[in-house]
Amino acid sequence: MPKLRLAVLGSGSGSNMQSIVDAIEAGTLDAEIVCVLADVADAKILERAARHNLSHQYVSCAPFKTKLDGDAQEEYIRIMKAAGADTVVLAGFMRIVKQGLLDAFPNRVLNIHPALLPAFPGLHSWKQALDYGAKVAGCTVHFVDAGTDSGPIIVQKCVPVEEGDTPESLHARIQVQEHIAFPEALRYLAADALTIKGRVVHIKR
Amino acid sequence: MPKLRLAVLGSGSGSNMQSIVDAIEAGTLDAEIVCVLADVADAKILERAARHNLSHQYVSCAPFKTKLDGDAQEEYIRIMKAAGADTVVLAGFMRIVKQGLLDAFPNRVLNIHPALLPAFPGLHSWKQALDYGAKVAGCTVHFVDAGTDSGPIIVQKCVPVEEGDTPESLHARIQVQEHIAFPEALRYLAADALTIKGRVVHIKR
Repeated sequence: MPKLRLAVLGSGSGSNMQSIVDAIEAGTLDAEIVCVLADVADAKILERAARHNLSHQYVSCAPFKTKLDGDAQEEYIRIMKAAGADTVVLAGFMRIVKQGLLDAFPNRVLNIHPALLPAFPGLHSWKQALDYGAKVAGCTVHFVDAGTDSGPIIVQKCVPVEEGDTPESLHARIQVQEHIAFPEALRYLAADALTIKGRVVHIKR
Repeated sequence: MPKLRLAVLGSGSGSNMQSIVDAIEAGTLDAEIVCVLADVADAKILERAARHNLSHQYVSCAPFKTKLDGDAQEEYIRIMKAAGADTVVLAGFMRIVKQGLLDAFPNRVLNIHPALLPAFPGLHSWKQALDYGAKVAGCTVHFVDAGTDSGPIIVQKCVPVEEGDTPESLHARIQVQEHIAFPEALRYLAADALTIKGRVVHIKR
C-alpha cells in the first residue's frame, strides 16, 4: 500500500494536483490520490481527475462563500475518511478551512501559497509582490493551522521578479516552482521525515 | 571623476563596506568612497577605512541611542556634503535615520537589510526567520524612506535555510549574498539605471 493516501481539494485547474499525479506516476512519490473534491461544479481539476481515473466529486459548500464549514465540512470529512485518506492536500482550494477539518486530520492538511510567507499572505499574492516592488517572489508549502497562510512551513522556493513582469508572467514563473515544491513536501511526509516543533518544521534527510 | 561619490555610515565591522571597496578596486563599480562615518568610536569599519586610505571619522550621535537626529544629524550631513558625497550608504549603521538626512540626499540613501522584506523587518531578522521556520531567507538593498525597512527595493537575494542552522550560520550565509547585492545595487545607481515609480524600482538593463 502506498505510504500516503491523499485527498485533494481544489477549485480551479488542478495544475498542482497534476504535479502530484506526475510524481506518483513517475514513481518518485510513494502516494495514492484516493479522492478529489471540488467546490466548483465545472472545475477543471475534476476533468483532470477523470482523465487519470481518480475518484472525484463536486461537493457544494453552500451556504458559505469563502469557507468550508458546517454541514459541508462534515460531508467533505465523511467522504475523505470513507476513501481512506490520511492526508489532505489543498491544491488551489479557494476557501478557508476550519478547525473541524484540522481536527479530523491533525498535522495532515497541507496548502501551497504563491508567496514567500510570511510575506504576502491572502489573495493574489503575486500581484501583491509586484505592487510592493519585491525583487524576489516564490511559493510556500505549509501545514495548515487555524490562521490564514500562517502554518508551519515545509518547503519554500524562490523566483526572481523580472523587469517588465505582469501579474500573469510572475504567476506563471511561481507556478513552475509550485509544481516542484508540492511533490517535494509530500515526499518528506511520505518518508516520515517531518517533525513539527513549535512552528518550525524539521526535516530529517 | 567616478560616477558615484559615496558616504558610508556604519556601526560595526564594515564587511558590507568592504564588498563595495573590493568592487571599486576591481574596477566593477564606478564609485568613490569620499567619507566613512561611524557612531561607535572603536567600530572596526574605521580601521578598515584606514587600511584603504579612506577619509574616516567617529561622530557621536549622543544624546540619541537609536536614531540619527538633531545636532548629530546636522553634523553628519555637514561632513558628508563637505566631502562631496552624493549618495549615502548605510552599511550596518544601527540607527534609524530621520527626514533631515533623507531631505539632504533625496532618493540617495541606501540600506541593506538581512531579510527578504517585507518579511522580517527590524532587528536580528535572520533569527526571526529561523524562529518563524522560514525555509528561504535572504537580503534586501533598498532606498530608505521614512519607515523602518520599508523603502523601495532595488535588489533582493535569497539563500536556503538549512536543517541545523543556527542564527550564526544562517547570518553568515546571508552575508555572502549581502556582499554581492550591495555592489550590484550601486552598479545600477552608477549606471543611472534606476527609476522609482510609487514604491517600485524599475531597472533599465
